[in-house]
Amino acid sequence: MKTKSYAANSATTPLAPFNLERRAPGEHDVQIEILFCGVCHSDVHTVRNEWQGTTYPCVPGHEIIGRVISVGAHVKKFKAGDIAGVGCLVDSCRTCGNCEEHLEQFCEKGATFTYNAPDKHSGGVTFGGYSESIVVDEAFVLQVPKNLDLAATAPLLCAGITTYSPLRYHGVTKGQKVGIVGLGGLGHMGVKLAKALGAHVVVFTASLSKVEDALRLGADEVVQSKDEDAMKKHLNSFNFILDTVGAKHDINVYLVLLRRDGNLTQVGVASEPLEVDVTNLIFGRRSFSGSLIGGLKETQEMLDFCGQHNITSDIELIPIQQVNEAYDRLVKGDVKYRFVIDMASLKQAK
Amino acid sequence: MKTKSYAANSATTPLAPFNLERRAPGEHDVQIEILFCGVCHSDVHTVRNEWQGTTYPCVPGHEIIGRVISVGAHVKKFKAGDIAGVGCLVDSCRTCGNCEEHLEQFCEKGATFTYNAPDKHSGGVTFGGYSESIVVDEAFVLQVPKNLDLAATAPLLCAGITTYSPLRYHGVTKGQKVGIVGLGGLGHMGVKLAKALGAHVVVFTASLSKVEDALRLGADEVVQSKDEDAMKKHLNSFNFILDTVGAKHDINVYLVLLRRDGNLTQVGVASEPLEVDVTNLIFGRRSFSGSLIGGLKETQEMLDFCGQHNITSDIELIPIQQVNEAYDRLVKGDVKYRFVIDMASLKQAK
Repeated sequence: MKTKSYAANSATTPLAPFNLERRAPGEHDVQIEILFCGVCHSDVHTVRNEWQGTTYPCVPGHEIIGRVISVGAHVKKFKAGDIAGVGCLVDSCRTCGNCEEHLEQFCEKGATFTYNAPDKHSGGVTFGGYSESIVVDEAFVLQVPKNLDLAATAPLLCAGITTYSPLRYHGVTKGQKVGIVGLGGLGHMGVKLAKALGAHVVVFTASLSKVEDALRLGADEVVQSKDEDAMKKHLNSFNFILDTVGAKHDINVYLVLLRRDGNLTQVGVASEPLEVDVTNLIFGRRSFSGSLIGGLKETQEMLDFCGQHNITSDIELIPIQQVNEAYDRLVKGDVKYRFVIDMASLKQAK
Repeated sequence: MKTKSYAANSATTPLAPFNLERRAPGEHDVQIEILFCGVCHSDVHTVRNEWQGTTYPCVPGHEIIGRVISVGAHVKKFKAGDIAGVGCLVDSCRTCGNCEEHLEQFCEKGATFTYNAPDKHSGGVTFGGYSESIVVDEAFVLQVPKNLDLAATAPLLCAGITTYSPLRYHGVTKGQKVGIVGLGGLGHMGVKLAKALGAHVVVFTASLSKVEDALRLGADEVVQSKDEDAMKKHLNSFNFILDTVGAKHDINVYLVLLRRDGNLTQVGVASEPLEVDVTNLIFGRRSFSGSLIGGLKETQEMLDFCGQHNITSDIELIPIQQVNEAYDRLVKGDVKYRFVIDMASLKQAK
């Protein structure tokens, strides 16, 4: 089926209207009219080929909220008219150890990511959410709590699960002290989720301009990361620190803030290696980890949790015609805190 | 009490005979005639002031095996004539959270290390095991299994617990695949202990000359770390990797060998930071940790475990008069696998 979208034709050309081909829905498929799609930093990296390996034309977008148009004969969880979500994954082998443990993001055969991944059906690459509709196996479609604003829910599908999963994996719970490094699309979700899990939340930020916002988002304290005296007051005190900074930076100043057995998890992808002074890990038996989005089961759990706690992303809604400008602003950190594309605007595109 | 020892008087002078002063044993103290003392790389770093902060004269040594000479009135675990061990710690606050959890090495008030640490009794610094006797509170004295060779048991007090503790903390058990990076004093103990815990043990070494020895020590496989094809065969397969290399090196080549949720623990102290490509942690949700010796309870558990499994260190026994030469050989990696000083030789020193 011919489907309107916005695609990049090369690493250096702006996104522009493109007609892609979607498969006809199969027996297990859900066909979804896309209402909103978040703009993730990964979209920019991929479109601009900053991680290499981009196949053009490239249609990004993996923070998708839409309305079900039709469902295949064997689909059980959805019916036409339902609101549905699609995140970073649209398929996996479903039989390997990791898939069986509901960790499809680590599928041993290679998960099928929502865009720029080999598409078993088309033989080409997958096309993401900057499009009017998408067809996804129901096992990879998520149910959306009815009480949440739909546009502001879209970013939960990537930014939400990326921050929720490590908070849960590392056992963040009531009364713990949790740090959030960086207050962007990921960081602002980390603050909201850690707070809802009952933690005492401390935001580390380089820019003083974000102090008020951090407090409004739910932080109990804000520390300017360049203020050595302020940092010293927090030595050996954190159970967990979530680092969302996607650029080279000094993590040692945060490692020393962890308690014994504390963990710092990195979810930002820096293109250069980070330097670790091993004595900061040896003293205090601390650890430094990574985390990658989450499996389907946990993504659903996160959406339900957000429904219960009335958590969505702070967004700036844009028409798709402004997406290239939004990319430039995103790279500068000029967004509070996530751009979401109102896909109704795509209908106006030729 | 005047006590013969060997001390360094500066960072650049050889160790030489020195008479130190030991306190008279108190009610909770055990007075020990030192029979054997292992030579740890930390001794060299401290004597040469490579970690800064060395107070001279410096009497190193924290792998101590001796015979109890006398005990204070309240001592319960030891009597004169018993064989006893002293490791890296001789005291701690005993009341902080970490001490209460039997992790005295992380004492929040600062544990008292066996040498070059502030000594509550003398007001100076502690003096270690390169001496004829030592006086230690019984809470910090260890019981030694009767079946082990005493000289070869000394290195268990540091090299043994340093490798045992992370293997246990990270849950190494029967059937798991465990890597050991570096085959020196620490690494060779790691091989023996991981094997005794039931793991499939793979040794990574840069020098082909160590292959036979690694197999003799109990390794199931030996991989030359520079052989990219050999390394590739082990991608995503390790539950745990213990890295004992105390110099700057590339840990990314090992991180990618870990399974999902696998951990690499560093016990070697490199003076320069190690570089971590965060994608190696993010994909596979891997973690990179540190570990520092072990608490008294776990050190006793390790000694008992070594008794049950007949595990000691491979050693080269030397008289104390050869300790300076031994330091030079140790720095070159020319020892299989630990120098131990026969302290009977000290009696000959003037």
